[in-house]
Amino acid sequence: MPVPLHKVAINTATLGYKLPIRQTVDAIARAGFGGIAPWRREIGSGEASTIGRCIRDAGLRVSGYCRSTYFPAATPECRIGNIEDNRQALRDAADLGAECFVLVAGGLPEGSRDLPDARRQIADGIAALMSEAAGLGVALAIEPLHPMYAADRSCVNTIEQALDLCALIDPSGRGPLGVAIDVYHTWWDPKLPEMIRRAGRENRILAYHVNDWLSPTSDLLMDRGLPGEGVIDLPRIGACIRDAGYHGLFELEVFSDRLGDLPSNELLKRCAESISAL
Amino acid sequence: MPVPLHKVAINTATLGYKLPIRQTVDAIARAGFGGIAPWRREIGSGEASTIGRCIRDAGLRVSGYCRSTYFPAATPECRIGNIEDNRQALRDAADLGAECFVLVAGGLPEGSRDLPDARRQIADGIAALMSEAAGLGVALAIEPLHPMYAADRSCVNTIEQALDLCALIDPSGRGPLGVAIDVYHTWWDPKLPEMIRRAGRENRILAYHVNDWLSPTSDLLMDRGLPGEGVIDLPRIGACIRDAGYHGLFELEVFSDRLGDLPSNELLKRCAESISAL
Repeated sequence: MPVPLHKVAINTATLGYKLPIRQTVDAIARAGFGGIAPWRREIGSGEASTIGRCIRDAGLRVSGYCRSTYFPAATPECRIGNIEDNRQALRDAADLGAECFVLVAGGLPEGSRDLPDARRQIADGIAALMSEAAGLGVALAIEPLHPMYAADRSCVNTIEQALDLCALIDPSGRGPLGVAIDVYHTWWDPKLPEMIRRAGRENRILAYHVNDWLSPTSDLLMDRGLPGEGVIDLPRIGACIRDAGYHGLFELEVFSDRLGDLPSNELLKRCAESISAL
Repeated sequence: MPVPLHKVAINTATLGYKLPIRQTVDAIARAGFGGIAPWRREIGSGEASTIGRCIRDAGLRVSGYCRSTYFPAATPECRIGNIEDNRQALRDAADLGAECFVLVAGGLPEGSRDLPDARRQIADGIAALMSEAAGLGVALAIEPLHPMYAADRSCVNTIEQALDLCALIDPSGRGPLGVAIDVYHTWWDPKLPEMIRRAGRENRILAYHVNDWLSPTSDLLMDRGLPGEGVIDLPRIGACIRDAGYHGLFELEVFSDRLGDLPSNELLKRCAESISAL
């Protein structure tokens, strides 16, 4: 089933943050997409409401706001500071009208080898945001990251683990908490179909991010592909996501030095072409 | 609990295959290690018995023989050829006196995006080796590889998946089939302790490979660390492995361009020092 362009959002990392956010919004809307996922670096202090209006005026939805400050830290003071940062970002997410605030949880604190402790810090940090998120009406989307990022970006590394974390923090399942499923991070998982179904049953799928895994991959961070350029079976995963009850935007998030060098309009054209592979 | 040197084997990839195998055997034995894990590229046709004797004469055990030809292939003919290659390698493993033959299962065939099919081909390929392995008395050790290798090296990516595969192929649990647990591939797994315990209960732990995950990691293949250089909690995982009933050799397997440039004797000295981090 082809995905129509207006059901696809562009994560601004895909464009390499080259233009000011208002121009990025215009370019994405002009290209026919239905949504945008901006990053905090693009939203100046106090600007979120204005930019949220500008996005709505352009006819776009905000599929997600990227992303949390990492939770784990070497000292209690830093952990508290990280939570405060995330509270402010949550308020901005609300002002932007974001459908979720994306939680990239963080890896091991400097000098630590204690994964279970980092994971406890992540659970505590997310729990500390729950009432504010509920009050603001912004859902918290835990994004499991590929295991190759466990040390430095997130030690939440499978959908199963993220769902277990949701169940721990929000046992009733009524809180504003769920998962962002990104194919780059999860395509390899032998339990992927089972866990997408579970996420659907538990009403936890908040976002779906698409891109592709290049084989070979030359860089751990900046060598993703556009849909169709790599080895991920995107139609199969997309069908599974829809069967699980997700009918939100498909967000195109492609970190790539190779693509980031293209002019934004050329890149948006290639993004639009790539969705035939979804 | 410190690991004594005679309980540690050196995988020859750690030394970069710079010396002929007989000299490598001598160097490893002289440095005080208790075992070696050679690679097929080092063993000429018909040489396995002689080299096996040379290894035993040097007082070393063979912790494993590296490694299988990848199972998945684009055509049935190639799949059969891969199994035949592995049959020959199994006979060499027996002649070498190897404690297991290491199965690195293979990724997606050229042009394929069908992970479930590649995984079925792996199950079929391993099943086809079982009676020969039993006859030769060589155990087959499925090594789950890090998910970042799912496309090109192995789409067996977690211990859980490898154990499920063992249960599928060998439901009685009496066959010569189990897992090689390598910390580099599995350290991030939130289910690691649970799955090591399960592997122990099911009597499936055939090998334990040690090294370290550097943070940051600059290359997907050739940037591993010696134990202690990275972020893996090796004492915790080692205790878990022993508690699960594994009392075999700890095999040091470190793919590293940085270390591979060192002279073998200097590198073996650094290997010997590094085991204090286990």
